[in-house]
Amino acid sequence: MFFHENELQYPVEVEEPNPAFARMLQQAIGGVEGEIRVFSQYLFQGMNQPPENHEMRMLLYETAMEELGHVEMLATAVAKNLEGAPVGLREEMSQDSAVNAAMHGYLPRQFLSAGMGAMPINSQGEPFTMDHVYASGNPAADMYANVTAEATGRTLATRLWEMTDDPGMKDMLSYLIARDTMHQNQWLAALQALGDPDDAFDHLPVPDSFPQEEENQEFNYEFMSTTREERENPEQPWTTGDSVDSEGEFSFGRQPGGGEPNLPSPDPRTYNQPTNEE
Amino acid sequence: MFFHENELQYPVEVEEPNPAFARMLQQAIGGVEGEIRVFSQYLFQGMNQPPENHEMRMLLYETAMEELGHVEMLATAVAKNLEGAPVGLREEMSQDSAVNAAMHGYLPRQFLSAGMGAMPINSQGEPFTMDHVYASGNPAADMYANVTAEATGRTLATRLWEMTDDPGMKDMLSYLIARDTMHQNQWLAALQALGDPDDAFDHLPVPDSFPQEEENQEFNYEFMSTTREERENPEQPWTTGDSVDSEGEFSFGRQPGGGEPNLPSPDPRTYNQPTNEE
Amino acid sequence: MFFHENELQYPVEVEEPNPAFARMLQQAIGGVEGEIRVFSQYLFQGMNQPPENHEMRMLLYETAMEELGHVEMLATAVAKNLEGAPVGLREEMSQDSAVNAAMHGYLPRQFLSAGMGAMPINSQGEPFTMDHVYASGNPAADMYANVTAEATGRTLATRLWEMTDDPGMKDMLSYLIARDTMHQNQWLAALQALGDPDDAFDHLPVPDSFPQEEENQEFNYEFMSTTREERENPEQPWTTGDSVDSEGEFSFGRQPGGGEPNLPSPDPRTYNQPTNEE
Amino acid sequence: MFFHENELQYPVEVEEPNPAFARMLQQAIGGVEGEIRVFSQYLFQGMNQPPENHEMRMLLYETAMEELGHVEMLATAVAKNLEGAPVGLREEMSQDSAVNAAMHGYLPRQFLSAGMGAMPINSQGEPFTMDHVYASGNPAADMYANVTAEATGRTLATRLWEMTDDPGMKDMLSYLIARDTMHQNQWLAALQALGDPDDAFDHLPVPDSFPQEEENQEFNYEFMSTTREERENPEQPWTTGDSVDSEGEFSFGRQPGGGEPNLPSPDPRTYNQPTNEE
Amino acid sequence: MFFHENELQYPVEVEEPNPAFARMLQQAIGGVEGEIRVFSQYLFQGMNQPPENHEMRMLLYETAMEELGHVEMLATAVAKNLEGAPVGLREEMSQDSAVNAAMHGYLPRQFLSAGMGAMPINSQGEPFTMDHVYASGNPAADMYANVTAEATGRTLATRLWEMTDDPGMKDMLSYLIARDTMHQNQWLAALQALGDPDDAFDHLPVPDSFPQEEENQEFNYEFMSTTREERENPEQPWTTGDSVDSEGEFSFGRQPGGGEPNLPSPDPRTYNQPTNEE
Amino acid sequence: MFFHENELQYPVEVEEPNPAFARMLQQAIGGVEGEIRVFSQYLFQGMNQPPENHEMRMLLYETAMEELGHVEMLATAVAKNLEGAPVGLREEMSQDSAVNAAMHGYLPRQFLSAGMGAMPINSQGEPFTMDHVYASGNPAADMYANVTAEATGRTLATRLWEMTDDPGMKDMLSYLIARDTMHQNQWLAALQALGDPDDAFDHLPVPDSFPQEEENQEFNYEFMSTTREERENPEQPWTTGDSVDSEGEFSFGRQPGGGEPNLPSPDPRTYNQPTNEE
Repeated sequence: MFFHENELQYPVEVEEPNPAFARMLQQAIGGVEGEIRVFSQYLFQGMNQPPENHEMRMLLYETAMEELGHVEMLATAVAKNLEGAPVGLREEMSQDSAVNAAMHGYLPRQFLSAGMGAMPINSQGEPFTMDHVYASGNPAADMYANVTAEATGRTLATRLWEMTDDPGMKDMLSYLIARDTMHQNQWLAALQALGDPDDAFDHLPVPDSFPQEEENQEFNYEFMSTTREERENPEQPWTTGDSVDSEGEFSFGRQPGGGEPNLPSPDPRTYNQPTNEE
Repeated sequence: MFFHENELQYPVEVEEPNPAFARMLQQAIGGVEGEIRVFSQYLFQGMNQPPENHEMRMLLYETAMEELGHVEMLATAVAKNLEGAPVGLREEMSQDSAVNAAMHGYLPRQFLSAGMGAMPINSQGEPFTMDHVYASGNPAADMYANVTAEATGRTLATRLWEMTDDPGMKDMLSYLIARDTMHQNQWLAALQALGDPDDAFDHLPVPDSFPQEEENQEFNYEFMSTTREERENPEQPWTTGDSVDSEGEFSFGRQPGGGEPNLPSPDPRTYNQPTNEE
Repeated sequence: MFFHENELQYPVEVEEPNPAFARMLQQAIGGVEGEIRVFSQYLFQGMNQPPENHEMRMLLYETAMEELGHVEMLATAVAKNLEGAPVGLREEMSQDSAVNAAMHGYLPRQFLSAGMGAMPINSQGEPFTMDHVYASGNPAADMYANVTAEATGRTLATRLWEMTDDPGMKDMLSYLIARDTMHQNQWLAALQALGDPDDAFDHLPVPDSFPQEEENQEFNYEFMSTTREERENPEQPWTTGDSVDSEGEFSFGRQPGGGEPNLPSPDPRTYNQPTNEE
Repeated sequence: MFFHENELQYPVEVEEPNPAFARMLQQAIGGVEGEIRVFSQYLFQGMNQPPENHEMRMLLYETAMEELGHVEMLATAVAKNLEGAPVGLREEMSQDSAVNAAMHGYLPRQFLSAGMGAMPINSQGEPFTMDHVYASGNPAADMYANVTAEATGRTLATRLWEMTDDPGMKDMLSYLIARDTMHQNQWLAALQALGDPDDAFDHLPVPDSFPQEEENQEFNYEFMSTTREERENPEQPWTTGDSVDSEGEFSFGRQPGGGEPNLPSPDPRTYNQPTNEE
Repeated sequence: MFFHENELQYPVEVEEPNPAFARMLQQAIGGVEGEIRVFSQYLFQGMNQPPENHEMRMLLYETAMEELGHVEMLATAVAKNLEGAPVGLREEMSQDSAVNAAMHGYLPRQFLSAGMGAMPINSQGEPFTMDHVYASGNPAADMYANVTAEATGRTLATRLWEMTDDPGMKDMLSYLIARDTMHQNQWLAALQALGDPDDAFDHLPVPDSFPQEEENQEFNYEFMSTTREERENPEQPWTTGDSVDSEGEFSFGRQPGGGEPNLPSPDPRTYNQPTNEE
Repeated sequence: MFFHENELQYPVEVEEPNPAFARMLQQAIGGVEGEIRVFSQYLFQGMNQPPENHEMRMLLYETAMEELGHVEMLATAVAKNLEGAPVGLREEMSQDSAVNAAMHGYLPRQFLSAGMGAMPINSQGEPFTMDHVYASGNPAADMYANVTAEATGRTLATRLWEMTDDPGMKDMLSYLIARDTMHQNQWLAALQALGDPDDAFDHLPVPDSFPQEEENQEFNYEFMSTTREERENPEQPWTTGDSVDSEGEFSFGRQPGGGEPNLPSPDPRTYNQPTNEE
């Protein structure tokens, strides 16, 4: 069950509106690295937790609500950056370049479809799709997906921080970057809690509930080189030494080869014409 | 530059064709957890590496080619499972349930659009879209995305393994599961190589090249609880103790609050009608 | 700013799990008539309201949070309906038809990708996309979009109610149907409040802030018949009498005709080959 | 069965071509508020009418054909606005800003993929998808969807009218705005004809064929407030007084609450790892 | 400008409704091989023709309208095949397999979203997207796209013909197959008319308006073999003899090789972390 | 099974980086006319070939690998054109127009999501989707799809060639244009090899394995005119004379007409409200 309060989670001020930056901020709302994605991802992971996973459920819901508040902050920032943006086309085109750039800086649909409001789209105008929500049911796989989301999210936020010199926007981004730091840490803490907390990678390989004797043990720690000509073991951390999960030893090999694929001949009722080869 | 050889990477045998399983295997071809995705992801990450990252580039290309070979193995498995599948609709419907189930087991487009061949779609018929390819330019973010892909991929493969009892299919899946074990390990090894290899999480927070004094340091290791009523610190690994990246200490707090959003009033030329409130 | 409480909005009980019904319920989660859509739509409409529209903002946020609670109820119902669903493929296929149907009743990805959990997809497995969120900035257009969402949503809920005879599911749907009744009413009440409340259609035509003398007044209340052969005025409510907005009188006419389109000849640098016509 | 005539429905003249405006017009062709959508929507609604709904079928077909003529008008306008647009990249970039803006004004694919022609895409280059076609089978729900389409469509057309000062374009838009006025009126007239024409809302709640005693009557006219702290009834048109459909009385309440969701524990064969909680 | 007549283009009769076949027919409506696609493709190609291409414009419009009539025929066939389909879930599941199959034979959204009507989707429920409309501006490229559409369309129709034994459906499909024969022929006739009609391939290579001396003449008729090990010329029609366009002679070679890609090093402001390689 | 070599297929040099051209090149990577598409299309066609089609399989694999090398060349060209592109927003906006244009020339996500790297998207930022991969199982239909892909691909490449004057880029495009010439020729050679090589169109109509006496022979070579008013035979190559496939004679007629569609009345359980017509 969910509630709201008519207050932002953190102040959002824009000193000088910049329509082009409004467009860039959309990436943090509706982009694959953005806040709608993490909100939805943590919510769906949370809603699928059985009662015995109470703390995991709480962890996911707590942060889902925080992320929804980030969506609200960013939407506010978009609307404030669009304030006073030019609407007409022709006049600006014959005047000066700064106005031109501003005009073309925002996405057409921010005016045409939304009347200068935030939209659930990315910086190129593509709507967010829920296909990007990872909730596999396997908590270790999901925690890695969450770290990935926060790592790409923090990378995005630092790039946005580079793009602007508006003090209000820099302050808001500095807050969001800080929260991404926390979230990377918290999901990794949750990952460690899935196994022996003293062994950073005890939960591997994901899923660790599959009996490892059923996987083909000839190939599970061999790096498979596919360069055209065979090459020497480059002695990298992934070709030699103990495996990260401490369950095997890395080696360096080639693709085993499995013979020609022998597909069945097509059923004549598919009307796949024969190629008349001899 | 790329090459092929008319041989499979590993043998693919189907003892008794099962059209419904052909559908399930499509998830491992065109699903978000599937092989087209990892092939494309590693390829795009690899193609964007500058010359000074030679070993990273090689690592990504080597494995991209291996994954393309997995696509070929699975496509072969799909075609072999579709061999002899019924085509007509009406007759089967009045006969026996096993044939019925087989009939409805495969996806209509596997016959209608592909003449009983593999397609670049998932088990529900959706085409793979490149939106799922993560190549952020930041190698740490990308390695986490790669671990995620292999973790969800291995989870999928174990679920497919549960669904079948065909010895050929179980052998093929046992090989693919083994490779996913290796790949999870190799991307984590590469992650560790990005920082101090003795510190499992020295590369954090991603991106670690952003000056941490610029992030809001009041909030970067605080777990933000959003339950309606304030609650006690549940003393979980993410609310207390050293942070995973060893850069801070976890604490337990509430959303700071940022005041009401004060959006600008709409430009009259947007034709957003006033709501006539007083 | 947003909050949650670990309680459902209304009880969700499933007497006898039915995997096929779990699939149907997905339409009410991730379908275009579903709850993710209305939640997102009301949220984005609400976030774009300027401070002078305080009551409109509150109205939209209040209901957005209610709809998010419906997502949670339905996700719970999906997981409960999937309890105990069969996983293997082959055995069931040779046994009895009821199990077969159950097996094929759920979506493959509910097992393969989600481990038997709810997903942000519709009954055919398509992910929800934010392209379906209407937030035009014009409150009258948005209120009509909201009535439409509730009208198609209530239609969907009544069809789901027809499909099941599980008492728990019927109770949950009876609650959701009731809420859709309220929501249809509340958006229409808000529409009326945009104009003279005594005139049900005083807010028309949307947007009513555009000067009507600028629209081509020869054609703004004429029904334009396009049947191949001209026909008589069928004397329907839309071809005769006062217009609904009381601003004109309906008439019955034909397309005016605007002459041949005279497109410019292509620039030779487009490499559009000439068709060599004489 | 369908026919054409090589004449536009209304004249389309462009005095001074403007490539940036060609891009904006694409929103009215392939956007969700655009003409391909209404054409397709009315056509599919019409094609699904049984013979007893003869007038409804005619109404929908007549207008579908009119909308297809609008697509043709707008496509002509796009091609005329692209006439003479610059093709090269480098030269313009070092010269003057007006040409620059023009260059970046059109969408790359209008040249690269279409050789300076209209495309079935919106102003941001996204192809129209039929997912936006509403044809629920329920005529009341469909009529509301049609009013929404015309309301967002007229809003779009007025915004385009603001963007241009070309007399030909203003004349074309003035015609299209007029037709949207008519269409909003005609769908509302059809809605009223579904019930008692003297009662503007007699067709509510949609669908009105569902027995209202089966819906949960405790909650069907209660406004459900979700603010974190309970607040007073704000005495708005949606929280007090008769409901719009005259079937109930508005009240103001809170979410009832339904207890904790008690999801089933996962089947071990899903390989959802346990979280090891105590 | 467009018109309609309330009559089908060709009779559509269904002797015995078959809900599963209703689903299959959707592929011919909203599939990539279907009728919405060809209608839209011919329409957009036609609308972009300049006045000097009058016959090409007429050719495209004439056939576009014919294809729109096919959409109507197929939509009628879908609705007739859904007549009397079962709606409830539970009862059928415990009864007999034929009803089960019928139940699961149609797409859930045909009931849930459309109330048993045709939809603009394919046999797997995916909406048609206009991304599949080819209208490049180059008439030769477009005519090949049109032949492809008719070739895949006729292949689909013959597969549907295999699936059914209903005399009405077989008659309708026999008509549609015949029209696809005509359309393949007419687009090829139009292709030949683009060049010297006595030379079947005089319009090649597309676009033939590009000066062939500007293309790299070392590689324009060489078949480039990419097998891992160099192999002998297999003496196939594409590796030896005159080229099909009579402008060159086929040869058999290898990839030339272009040296290592030397990408620029990343700008530090992208926060792409260095990989610390030496 | 697949292999790579750390060398480009052909040299890629950029004399003067141009971020706007980097955007345009994306169309050739991720556009529907681009190289990911042809690579994927030839690969899936190839993987579905049965052993008796050995030469067809080899033909498809050989060229698939070549196309993958084109993806790599273009990705390299994108990264080189983005070298040194400006990142900040505000400063450029007040300075000079050339920098402005460059700034807005690249796609925001090339910086925000990819840190200045190539992406699997088109020039408007849309990700490539596998929906565009044609592999029908029918080799004649597939070869026409391949000619179409190469014809639209060569048209795109010539348009890109027009846009740039960088010698390195012109050289790379001249190579790609040459390869498209070869590929158009080779697929047509393969088409001819499907039938009697002396008869250019012996493989028609596709599929030619369907018994032509089963198609409705009254309509299979008749051009069907749909102009509103009947018109005279325009005596075009597609309305008179022998058909291209030499199996019939072209004629000129009208739509036959099939009577009114008589849809079944809706099942009351769909809650499609009656329209109350008399």
